[in-house]
Amino acid sequence: MSKPLNVGMIGYGFMGRAHSNAYRRVNNFFDLKYHPVLKAACARSADQIKVFADQWGYESIETDWRKLIERKDIDVVDICVPNNLHSEIALACAAAGKMILCEKPLAMNGPEALKMVEAVEKAGVANMVWYNYRRVPAVSLAKQLIDEGRLGRIFHYRSQFLQDWTIKSDLPQGGNGLWRLDVEAAGSGVSGDLLAHCIDTALWLNGPITTLNAMTETFVKERMHNLTGKVEKVGIDDACIFMGRHANGSLCVFESTRYARGHKALYTLEINGENASIQWDLHDLHRLQYFDYRDDSIIRGWHSIHVSDGDQPYMSKWWVPGLQIGYEHSFVHQVADFIEGISNGKPAMPDFRDAYHTQLVLDAVLASAKKHEWLDVQQG
Amino acid sequence: MSKPLNVGMIGYGFMGRAHSNAYRRVNNFFDLKYHPVLKAACARSADQIKVFADQWGYESIETDWRKLIERKDIDVVDICVPNNLHSEIALACAAAGKMILCEKPLAMNGPEALKMVEAVEKAGVANMVWYNYRRVPAVSLAKQLIDEGRLGRIFHYRSQFLQDWTIKSDLPQGGNGLWRLDVEAAGSGVSGDLLAHCIDTALWLNGPITTLNAMTETFVKERMHNLTGKVEKVGIDDACIFMGRHANGSLCVFESTRYARGHKALYTLEINGENASIQWDLHDLHRLQYFDYRDDSIIRGWHSIHVSDGDQPYMSKWWVPGLQIGYEHSFVHQVADFIEGISNGKPAMPDFRDAYHTQLVLDAVLASAKKHEWLDVQQG
Amino acid sequence: MSKPLNVGMIGYGFMGRAHSNAYRRVNNFFDLKYHPVLKAACARSADQIKVFADQWGYESIETDWRKLIERKDIDVVDICVPNNLHSEIALACAAAGKMILCEKPLAMNGPEALKMVEAVEKAGVANMVWYNYRRVPAVSLAKQLIDEGRLGRIFHYRSQFLQDWTIKSDLPQGGNGLWRLDVEAAGSGVSGDLLAHCIDTALWLNGPITTLNAMTETFVKERMHNLTGKVEKVGIDDACIFMGRHANGSLCVFESTRYARGHKALYTLEINGENASIQWDLHDLHRLQYFDYRDDSIIRGWHSIHVSDGDQPYMSKWWVPGLQIGYEHSFVHQVADFIEGISNGKPAMPDFRDAYHTQLVLDAVLASAKKHEWLDVQQG
Amino acid sequence: MSKPLNVGMIGYGFMGRAHSNAYRRVNNFFDLKYHPVLKAACARSADQIKVFADQWGYESIETDWRKLIERKDIDVVDICVPNNLHSEIALACAAAGKMILCEKPLAMNGPEALKMVEAVEKAGVANMVWYNYRRVPAVSLAKQLIDEGRLGRIFHYRSQFLQDWTIKSDLPQGGNGLWRLDVEAAGSGVSGDLLAHCIDTALWLNGPITTLNAMTETFVKERMHNLTGKVEKVGIDDACIFMGRHANGSLCVFESTRYARGHKALYTLEINGENASIQWDLHDLHRLQYFDYRDDSIIRGWHSIHVSDGDQPYMSKWWVPGLQIGYEHSFVHQVADFIEGISNGKPAMPDFRDAYHTQLVLDAVLASAKKHEWLDVQQG
Repeated sequence: MSKPLNVGMIGYGFMGRAHSNAYRRVNNFFDLKYHPVLKAACARSADQIKVFADQWGYESIETDWRKLIERKDIDVVDICVPNNLHSEIALACAAAGKMILCEKPLAMNGPEALKMVEAVEKAGVANMVWYNYRRVPAVSLAKQLIDEGRLGRIFHYRSQFLQDWTIKSDLPQGGNGLWRLDVEAAGSGVSGDLLAHCIDTALWLNGPITTLNAMTETFVKERMHNLTGKVEKVGIDDACIFMGRHANGSLCVFESTRYARGHKALYTLEINGENASIQWDLHDLHRLQYFDYRDDSIIRGWHSIHVSDGDQPYMSKWWVPGLQIGYEHSFVHQVADFIEGISNGKPAMPDFRDAYHTQLVLDAVLASAKKHEWLDVQQG
Repeated sequence: MSKPLNVGMIGYGFMGRAHSNAYRRVNNFFDLKYHPVLKAACARSADQIKVFADQWGYESIETDWRKLIERKDIDVVDICVPNNLHSEIALACAAAGKMILCEKPLAMNGPEALKMVEAVEKAGVANMVWYNYRRVPAVSLAKQLIDEGRLGRIFHYRSQFLQDWTIKSDLPQGGNGLWRLDVEAAGSGVSGDLLAHCIDTALWLNGPITTLNAMTETFVKERMHNLTGKVEKVGIDDACIFMGRHANGSLCVFESTRYARGHKALYTLEINGENASIQWDLHDLHRLQYFDYRDDSIIRGWHSIHVSDGDQPYMSKWWVPGLQIGYEHSFVHQVADFIEGISNGKPAMPDFRDAYHTQLVLDAVLASAKKHEWLDVQQG
Repeated sequence: MSKPLNVGMIGYGFMGRAHSNAYRRVNNFFDLKYHPVLKAACARSADQIKVFADQWGYESIETDWRKLIERKDIDVVDICVPNNLHSEIALACAAAGKMILCEKPLAMNGPEALKMVEAVEKAGVANMVWYNYRRVPAVSLAKQLIDEGRLGRIFHYRSQFLQDWTIKSDLPQGGNGLWRLDVEAAGSGVSGDLLAHCIDTALWLNGPITTLNAMTETFVKERMHNLTGKVEKVGIDDACIFMGRHANGSLCVFESTRYARGHKALYTLEINGENASIQWDLHDLHRLQYFDYRDDSIIRGWHSIHVSDGDQPYMSKWWVPGLQIGYEHSFVHQVADFIEGISNGKPAMPDFRDAYHTQLVLDAVLASAKKHEWLDVQQG
Repeated sequence: MSKPLNVGMIGYGFMGRAHSNAYRRVNNFFDLKYHPVLKAACARSADQIKVFADQWGYESIETDWRKLIERKDIDVVDICVPNNLHSEIALACAAAGKMILCEKPLAMNGPEALKMVEAVEKAGVANMVWYNYRRVPAVSLAKQLIDEGRLGRIFHYRSQFLQDWTIKSDLPQGGNGLWRLDVEAAGSGVSGDLLAHCIDTALWLNGPITTLNAMTETFVKERMHNLTGKVEKVGIDDACIFMGRHANGSLCVFESTRYARGHKALYTLEINGENASIQWDLHDLHRLQYFDYRDDSIIRGWHSIHVSDGDQPYMSKWWVPGLQIGYEHSFVHQVADFIEGISNGKPAMPDFRDAYHTQLVLDAVLASAKKHEWLDVQQG
């Protein structure tokens, strides 16, 4: 029989839903030593958090996150609030001895992230960051193929995260659904929101990025601000491109934007090795493209792998070959792995320290874009 | 506040899991007047059903389906057992005044299905059959586009369901995971299992099939039987092809097989109209291909629609544009629609009568294949 | 140094252009013992054939095909006229000892084709039929993979040829560009025009078809006739579907139509074997899709082969890997192979006898559609 | 009747073949006022140029390009030799009043290119550079859609040219087939060879690039040199990435490499506008991907346009809808347009001046990569 793992959720937005769904589903599909119990949900607005709690079956609500953290019946706190609030909450959780699952990006910048890392390591609490795309089965399979050494020497890594939802210039900034457009809350624009995912996966698949050169752009310079009611300067980056080098000698290039008409959420990645290459994209997330030069030459071509067989990552837990899973399952897998980690003492990644490295790359990206020069990435 | 809808599940196999998942999730995503309560799960083996019940949170178990049906605390019975058991259970449910959700195909043949139809209609109990693919958002969108009249006069309908999992000749037949290979339990092979889905969708999208000509084949003639321990003749069809005509004058062609190497579960459909055409396949179920001759000629081409926007069927309930859902969601949608139907008095389809029409097409298919001649389809 | 091979072309339509292009290009890319010389082009209209001859560099013109055949300076006659004229011309060519390259389908029916076969075999003249798709490199590669035994036991063959250019009901029938809609000139509709290609390739790749059942449809029943100026009954089939069995025990299904909105010339084929499967389509003719179950299971998927490498059929003659060739090249390859055949005494296929087998399948298709019953295919 | 246009070809490699094919074919498909006559082919080796001349039907050979240029029976000189020889030959051609078709990149650098521009403009001779990809019909269609204003404000341009043919470290450098690996002959590596195409198309489709930042890499540092027989340092760039800005405010990112395993010659381009976006790639060159936000929202998706209809660029000259053309046709189109240009006094692009702009971008790319800093592009 599994033991309860009491969850306190702070936030109730898109990610609050995605995580809640994961907590509720994980034990139906995975055999684990713990089962999450939705103990409490917290937000400043009692009305709104009540609706959310009812929808998802949280047992209670709180309107002050400090109260939530003080509760003895909470084992793990899930931080699903705007980026500028992560640090303070996480430090308090660590002090209170709570396990922490924190939304990405971990912090507003590297130094802030480092404090969080130090706090959780000092407190000895389990910690993880919601870079969920690592656990899309096709991406996990990519990692497996790389770890098996199938690719040989790596020459290139490239990744994009392309969206188009902010093209309308009359879209306001700030407030509940739109805090990602408000630099005060988000810290940055597409770099922290989208590039952060690309960087996390890149570091995981291809190792450290050592040096880079970045550019950013804000296409729409002013937007109505929901919190002030006034047209205000837009402080976030709408697009960001950077090129650089990994420690293994490969070149990399990254791009993220919310102005790529036609792409809803096109997160792509590609890695080119001496012997084999891999491609993936989020719009067909259940497939992996794999090319192996060692195939017989006359039948050599990209394999379009429908990642739904029982011997492919996570898929034995779900349906049968040919039946695809989707976006939300990556969160279920992350919860499963988190629980495995606290069960067997081998913490699941990315933990805060891992996510701190992503933060250091982001810091270098934003600094390089500002200074218009190449920068070495601090290696944490 | 929603009211409880007490579910009694008979069976615990692949479909038992898929349905249980749907019951557990539906209220997190849909605002409904009822919420399913997993009251009891039933199977002959107490050990096995106990494991299943624990995994999915059923409150109790039964080992005799008649007991389950007698229970007053059960509102709706879900029949997830081999095809040859559907009828007896459904008739008993109707007699007991229970609502019924029955796996497909509804029955072993048309006459048996008709009795079930008459029973539920006489009893006045809500009833539905799990032809879940109608509620894949892309397929629902296809229906919407057809109903809007975008296609014009229809010339062609074609559909396939291709698998490859039974190619191994040392795969046995019969017993728990393999009853689909045992003609006693399944009634037929790919025709009842796979073609039934193709036919259900075809009737829904393109209206009645009036006449047809079919062929079947059993590639592996003998297999070890798990229930007898002996090598026995295989009674099911391994492959089935038929061609025919719809009442609207269009031609149709269907094929299903478990011997199409490379296709795990490739359910495809295409409809060609005077003005527009539509294609869909299950291996990329979140996409719909749409061609419209009325597009400007120089930019005319198949639209690859990533069905994940809020104005596309069911998608406002899930995540954000670009984030795909998968196979299991079709069952969630079906439960949601079933509950809507019993809430507002407009029963969701396909009900038993609807599924009876599919059964009549299947009867014609099998009879035609046996007689080697064209047959008119009885129109129920 | 290569020797001249004097070509006499009868006809100047679409195929006349495609063949002329092939004759003019072949020696630039292939090292051959003969080089075609465009000696004479022939058609009833002197004006029209003059324009054609000038465009393509024919040295002379004729307005009576009998005159052309009588000329001593003609080695090979290319028959590019409507189907109903093939036989008479071919018989005369054989009698005159000319080599013959005849457009497909070879004849109006099997018996007519048989006479042509007997004539060329008696005369001992080289003969070939323009089933050009065999020599699309990807299709040739498919043949190679099958001949290497990579597929194992074959279960399924399926093929389509889908077009949409006759959907307009005000399109007339008959006359120069539209003789394919006139049953007098064409003999049949899509079956002789499109299905014939599918059948030729199927027999080549998968061996004889032994039995079949077909249906045809004429969606637009009357069209203005260009030759009479009156609205007349349409005698051709607009669509044709048939299913059947190959001698090797595999099932087959074929469909051709000119009413599949969205498909310009979508010729597809697929073959499913125990170990491997192959797919191809004309809209991306430079690619072959190949699935091999013997690939490592975690990287198993359809290989998308860009057929442009030097070790793939014909491709060493063209450009470099990645640079695709197109439709017209299949004719160049056919001329090259024809010349190879007359150089080395191993005639290139399909010759008249080979094409006669396709004709017998077509006869069975049309007879079955008329009689509404299964028919065995005469095996010539 | 068309008049002769006497062509003198210098070189006989891959491009010599591609151009010769274009000269021989153009008048079969295009109605033009001139028809190319293959008057003479020139190379230092009499043996080798003789074989080439025979293969392609050149009337005579020369072994000294100065002799070729002196000949009065030559109207136009085609320069198909390594990059370091372009300038001297072109200057001599201009002095001799010959029209010039020069392979790309035009020159070793901007200043050299400028002298060539000044020479041809002073001499008043027709001149063009073989940036052939502009005339792939799908790319020409992209230009048309952009010129029609369908895209609105442009936000992003991105382009790649990915190959994998030099990954083998034992591939030598220098000499006939491998001068592209020899920095003396080529001037640069992938930047001049591959990126040059990307830049030419980008300037054509999206206007000037004003500023950029580049990086290059040489993965294999030493290779046997065919001309010296010794292992020598490799002077070319194996990979090049740059990011920058167009004058219209859009961001751009470019990448080219010969170390992207799995990509034979994957030239891609994408442009994202406010209203619409376009994608294209060379591995399926007959297709254009087009997304238009103004499509009805429920059927919005990328149009996969099979560019083979008569109303699409150049396609009325070839076959029928659905039948694709390939790589070599882009050269035929370029010859046709060159002849149109000299016929009607509206010179076809890109002429030397146009190609000079590409050279200036390349200069900035190489300088930026060397200096590790942002550079403004000289605007010629």
